[in-house]
Amino acid sequence: MLQPCRQFLNFKTHTVKTNNLRQFSNALAAVIVFCFVFSCNSSADKTTDTDSGAKSSDTNKTADSEDPLPSWNEGAVKSSIVDYVTTVTKEGSPDFIPVSDRIATFDNDGTLWSEQPLYFQLFYILDQVKAMSAHHPDWKTKQPFKAVLDNNMGELMKQGEKGLLQIIAASHAGMTSDHFDSTVSQWIDTAKNPVKQKLYKELVFQPMIELVKYLQANQFKVFIVSGGGIEFMRAWAEGVYGIPKDQIIGSSLKARFDYNNGNPRIVKLAELDFNDDKEGKPVAIQRYIGRKPVFAAGNSDGDLQMLQWTASNTLKNFELYVHHTDSTREWAYDRQSHIGTFNKGFDEAIARKWAIADMQKDWKVIYPFEKQ
Amino acid sequence: MLQPCRQFLNFKTHTVKTNNLRQFSNALAAVIVFCFVFSCNSSADKTTDTDSGAKSSDTNKTADSEDPLPSWNEGAVKSSIVDYVTTVTKEGSPDFIPVSDRIATFDNDGTLWSEQPLYFQLFYILDQVKAMSAHHPDWKTKQPFKAVLDNNMGELMKQGEKGLLQIIAASHAGMTSDHFDSTVSQWIDTAKNPVKQKLYKELVFQPMIELVKYLQANQFKVFIVSGGGIEFMRAWAEGVYGIPKDQIIGSSLKARFDYNNGNPRIVKLAELDFNDDKEGKPVAIQRYIGRKPVFAAGNSDGDLQMLQWTASNTLKNFELYVHHTDSTREWAYDRQSHIGTFNKGFDEAIARKWAIADMQKDWKVIYPFEKQ
Repeated sequence: MLQPCRQFLNFKTHTVKTNNLRQFSNALAAVIVFCFVFSCNSSADKTTDTDSGAKSSDTNKTADSEDPLPSWNEGAVKSSIVDYVTTVTKEGSPDFIPVSDRIATFDNDGTLWSEQPLYFQLFYILDQVKAMSAHHPDWKTKQPFKAVLDNNMGELMKQGEKGLLQIIAASHAGMTSDHFDSTVSQWIDTAKNPVKQKLYKELVFQPMIELVKYLQANQFKVFIVSGGGIEFMRAWAEGVYGIPKDQIIGSSLKARFDYNNGNPRIVKLAELDFNDDKEGKPVAIQRYIGRKPVFAAGNSDGDLQMLQWTASNTLKNFELYVHHTDSTREWAYDRQSHIGTFNKGFDEAIARKWAIADMQKDWKVIYPFEKQ
Repeated sequence: MLQPCRQFLNFKTHTVKTNNLRQFSNALAAVIVFCFVFSCNSSADKTTDTDSGAKSSDTNKTADSEDPLPSWNEGAVKSSIVDYVTTVTKEGSPDFIPVSDRIATFDNDGTLWSEQPLYFQLFYILDQVKAMSAHHPDWKTKQPFKAVLDNNMGELMKQGEKGLLQIIAASHAGMTSDHFDSTVSQWIDTAKNPVKQKLYKELVFQPMIELVKYLQANQFKVFIVSGGGIEFMRAWAEGVYGIPKDQIIGSSLKARFDYNNGNPRIVKLAELDFNDDKEGKPVAIQRYIGRKPVFAAGNSDGDLQMLQWTASNTLKNFELYVHHTDSTREWAYDRQSHIGTFNKGFDEAIARKWAIADMQKDWKVIYPFEKQ
């Protein structure tokens, strides 16, 4: 679906190596310059809620009430997940894993919720610039803000990396963590995906939420390990996924403590603290969790190192890739996509026999609202 | 007890502001240059296990079996803790705190275990340099290593900050996290405090362990937030305190993921990632936990910002300072000490009526081995 926008892919971001916001912007830049929803919707996106997913969810009604994964179709992937959990939680089993070692890590964008036509956090950035513009009258004539306000993505692209850094800084830094949290909370309760016309928080994957709950019910400690912003996710993901804030790990900006005459606050700074993607994911796992996972799920090459790290556990482990194959109910993309590229990871998953959930075949429903 | 060593305090470390290992070394440097146990033991340290603490622990036998804090003497501090926990966990109470907001943060050095005559992690550093010296024959003649091997702390001091950085790097970086973890684990199981002649891990505070368990039993999620090394603590603290590794937060070095031909590993680098002290503590709490605590415990000025941050919670909150007042059973120090300086925090605790646990008066026993 992204082909119509290929002509925009002329912006080199991956060669930049600095220790500031630039790293954080790379993933976003690769996307924003590639395709922007207001001009690039494909027909495949124009689905409704009454699609095949909604119909297939009818089968839930007859599902075994004890089925921990009712939104998964019977098949090799579902069986392998249930077999794994059953085996490693059975005392006396040679593959038994003590509770303290039951660490599961999930990517977020593309693994727990959709990520098309742009990472949802990027929509937040654009929406915030628009919302903040009332207090910045100069933005009407000042780039890169003017481009955002004019919905002129061609012009925004021309502003290059520097422009992107400016809109990230404007929407994420120079404010308290409390203020950022309440702004994201407000946004997530009201903002809709322009393609699906659903709240972003409705575009979470029902089968994956069931998987999270299934693991939690079996005393796995489930973490999110995402390239997305840590505070962006924490503002809503706890309520949506049932994963506590302190178990949500992501990319972060630096921050400072401000005593503020006895009304202390944390102020977010316009400097990258940590880029939680690719090689960063195992490093973040070590830093935040301190244990190697036994279960990891992702959907893109950005998750490959996390799965490699998990696969190197001497305890019995499970690696799961979500493959976006459903252009009707969700989106279909993999090797060629610049959002959620699934190429090297795809090859390695096949070679190492990791589980690959084919969204079209393995999932009865994609989103919770499809459930009857 | 530290007065005899004051003459050594001629090393300026607090003026250094860089973004590398130097920050990490400041706290350690302030100590190592101040007093070294092999030459500076005071008579107050030469206590035995059969001291007043052990005697007073006899009263445990008659304690109410339901007392959640049997090693605490009855008094204002114990009462205020129990009252607080009872109030905030009682549904319907105006001060009720939902489980997800029951976040408690504890400093480690001086709060959960002793920190005299030097931070225990510094003993680890010195011990490691000695242990590693077999593989580094040049250290016999090369400073700062020679000074460590010769137990010549005067010479080590002369090596200044640069020397300290070298021994930190040698003992903490350039190795895998797994190797570091196993080395610390081995050390903590065998190394003894030179003053108390007890394993370091035996020098934990029984009343504080009871407090941790009491909070956990009341569905508080308990975290360690310490200036000590995060991986140093995680190697042993989970087993000793019952606090999961992912709830142990501390200072950290940067690290990198090394694919290593399919045998991936995390390699620790000789560059500071985060200095989890003073203003760093609220920042770390925001980063790792994402919620403001309702309960915080510390013992020094390095914990003041954490307590200020906790005290700014709109939910009913509790701030506890441990005051080292027992020169017989533990150590006695506060405003003038260069380990665990308790001066500004002392003043603020008094002014704001925070709880101050007087170790001599409030604790029946200090260490678990004193219990009958």
